[in-house]
Amino acid sequence: MASFVSGGVCAPCGFSAAGVHAGVKTHATWKKDVALIVSDVPCAAAGVFTTNRVKAAPLLVDREHLANGQARAIIANSGNANACAPNALAHATAECEAVAAALGCPSTDVLVSSTGVIGQELNVRAIEAAVPGLVASLERSPEASDAAAHAIMTTDTVTKEAAVTCEVAGATVAIGGIAKGSGMIHPNMGTMLGFLTTDCAIDAALLHEALLEVARVSFNRISVDGDTSTNDSCLILANGTAGNAPIAEKGAGYRAFVAALTQLCVRLARAMAADGEGARHLIECTVSGARTEGPAETIAKSVISSTLTKAAVFGADANWGRVLCAMGYSGEEFDPEAVDVAFASAAGRVEVCAAGQGLPFDEAVAKAVLLEPEVQILIDLHDGDAACTCWGCDITYDYIRINGDYRT
Amino acid sequence: MASFVSGGVCAPCGFSAAGVHAGVKTHATWKKDVALIVSDVPCAAAGVFTTNRVKAAPLLVDREHLANGQARAIIANSGNANACAPNALAHATAECEAVAAALGCPSTDVLVSSTGVIGQELNVRAIEAAVPGLVASLERSPEASDAAAHAIMTTDTVTKEAAVTCEVAGATVAIGGIAKGSGMIHPNMGTMLGFLTTDCAIDAALLHEALLEVARVSFNRISVDGDTSTNDSCLILANGTAGNAPIAEKGAGYRAFVAALTQLCVRLARAMAADGEGARHLIECTVSGARTEGPAETIAKSVISSTLTKAAVFGADANWGRVLCAMGYSGEEFDPEAVDVAFASAAGRVEVCAAGQGLPFDEAVAKAVLLEPEVQILIDLHDGDAACTCWGCDITYDYIRINGDYRT
Repeated sequence: MASFVSGGVCAPCGFSAAGVHAGVKTHATWKKDVALIVSDVPCAAAGVFTTNRVKAAPLLVDREHLANGQARAIIANSGNANACAPNALAHATAECEAVAAALGCPSTDVLVSSTGVIGQELNVRAIEAAVPGLVASLERSPEASDAAAHAIMTTDTVTKEAAVTCEVAGATVAIGGIAKGSGMIHPNMGTMLGFLTTDCAIDAALLHEALLEVARVSFNRISVDGDTSTNDSCLILANGTAGNAPIAEKGAGYRAFVAALTQLCVRLARAMAADGEGARHLIECTVSGARTEGPAETIAKSVISSTLTKAAVFGADANWGRVLCAMGYSGEEFDPEAVDVAFASAAGRVEVCAAGQGLPFDEAVAKAVLLEPEVQILIDLHDGDAACTCWGCDITYDYIRINGDYRT
Repeated sequence: MASFVSGGVCAPCGFSAAGVHAGVKTHATWKKDVALIVSDVPCAAAGVFTTNRVKAAPLLVDREHLANGQARAIIANSGNANACAPNALAHATAECEAVAAALGCPSTDVLVSSTGVIGQELNVRAIEAAVPGLVASLERSPEASDAAAHAIMTTDTVTKEAAVTCEVAGATVAIGGIAKGSGMIHPNMGTMLGFLTTDCAIDAALLHEALLEVARVSFNRISVDGDTSTNDSCLILANGTAGNAPIAEKGAGYRAFVAALTQLCVRLARAMAADGEGARHLIECTVSGARTEGPAETIAKSVISSTLTKAAVFGADANWGRVLCAMGYSGEEFDPEAVDVAFASAAGRVEVCAAGQGLPFDEAVAKAVLLEPEVQILIDLHDGDAACTCWGCDITYDYIRINGDYRT
């Protein structure tokens, strides 16, 4: 098992970060809106991106810049998605060029991300003007990682940051990450925005494989509102300064790295689900007793995505019928008359359904279980040994308030 | 074109209806909770049901009773879904038997439906006790249809009732219907509950085909919350008393009947979407310029199902970026840079996006358009001549309130 440490994206050797207010967010001048993460040396780099047919301009630029598997820096802004907007591609390219000029590296070594409103022109001049100051304020410290994490927030209420260390091929390797989530979160190959750094020495192609593998079991298993964004991106930079024997094949070192990266990304993904727009509860749904992992995942995702189940958790109402209903329309085959369902949390566990039929249970106890900030929905299909866990959140008045008037 | 007339399920010759309070809804003794629709003579009958893997007991009974394509009566209760509940199958059968005994017909000629909470035992004794009174109060009148429409309401705020007349093979044929919707509405082969009557003479197999064909373009094109219920059912009884040459093949008569049935069911489906739980706005999304109807339907459904788009309409916020985003994750291929989007309503029309990019528009005008109770989202893919329209509703504080505490 990897150990969690502090420092976020600055935990690995050779990475520094910064976050400033550049003026993309015009309505809140005290809010940081541009983040920069830089490695002292060129890195192996990889990215996973949204499957949405409508892709924001930064994703197109990143795909090009990642073609050679190398990068050194990530610039990211909040407040504007730079998607379906005038001059989007030119502006995304200009951001990379501004950073490259300040760092003295090729612009293809800079990756770019944006998050915020779709369809409005990005104030790229403000970002260009801020880049020199941003570069000047780069630091390797937990505070610098935190500044970058703040600068990518939109409706997030807390930053999402984590770092782990693990042993890889004879050296201690660190992996750090920051992420943002909140709304339009139903990732499909990446998350709204996730930036990962590591000092591990690893081949760029294997780094990409590792990222795909880990995104599948972390970011791709959360949902806030079922809306897959145009901007979902998860980027990773590996600068190889940890001194491990470089990972060049899928041996023990690769597996140790993937295990640690998984722990890190699951923590960031859970944090994103817990801080879903307006959310009061993290919902963790585990489907066990499945024949294979695939159907377990589909069923768990259907449950955490069900608006009615989300509303029931908001109301602390042990309405397990909605859980069975969401399982039933998932599209997967299972025997409804074999299903057990329980709700659990720090306050205890209540069995509510056995073999597809309701059990008598104490409503007061069930309510206490569901009032906890983290609620588990435990489903057993009694059909095999495979299991899968997915994460979501409740839907609240605040979700409606936030999204009824986000743009104007 | 068929003409709309009054009378609901009692508009066609030879049909009577009733609705009473039997005691299934214990918390609201003034609310009707059992409906009965009866034909004077045996009818050709057909049904379409939910695709949810978890099916309520009444659906299993109906499938059996419809095997011979004949029925005479429909009994339906609200307040309890009779799904995943103790003795569900026995209770559904007992309801049919009670009605059969009172009418003097085989119990296989009675169809049964339930809607309400999942997982609690149905108070079938209360229904059995109410049946003699229910049969005694049968009437052929608009008021009787209205009583039946009231008796199937759950969180609906208004009844859904309509009837049409049309010319079929030399005779005037009437078709009537009542329906209920509100929550857990994302039908797939039927709707939450829809009961249709007609005096048209039509072969049972063709009646079934007509119902499938019409459900596909009406009930299956609405969504309130993306949750496909365990109880979705749409039943039709055709008693053949109109005097038309019986429809026995897919000729002009069949086509006239299907056209009239479509008009009726689209009206009921729109009414269901408009009265979605907590809804303040009907959202009608039309995707045109598609190569074929299939992709147009998938894209329109994705837009009306998008929680973020629904929240934007609630807030009268012309946030067309969310529309493009929902189109993009629909899974269909299209060229984002060819897409035009407009919002329209009784208050006017605003073009917001042309060729995939935002247009300048007057926010005050857009707000006025979106404040109307019926809002259109008009999308042109510029890729062909096919089009499709789907219907949904906004998501509001009331949706959360209703569903945060529905069961207890």
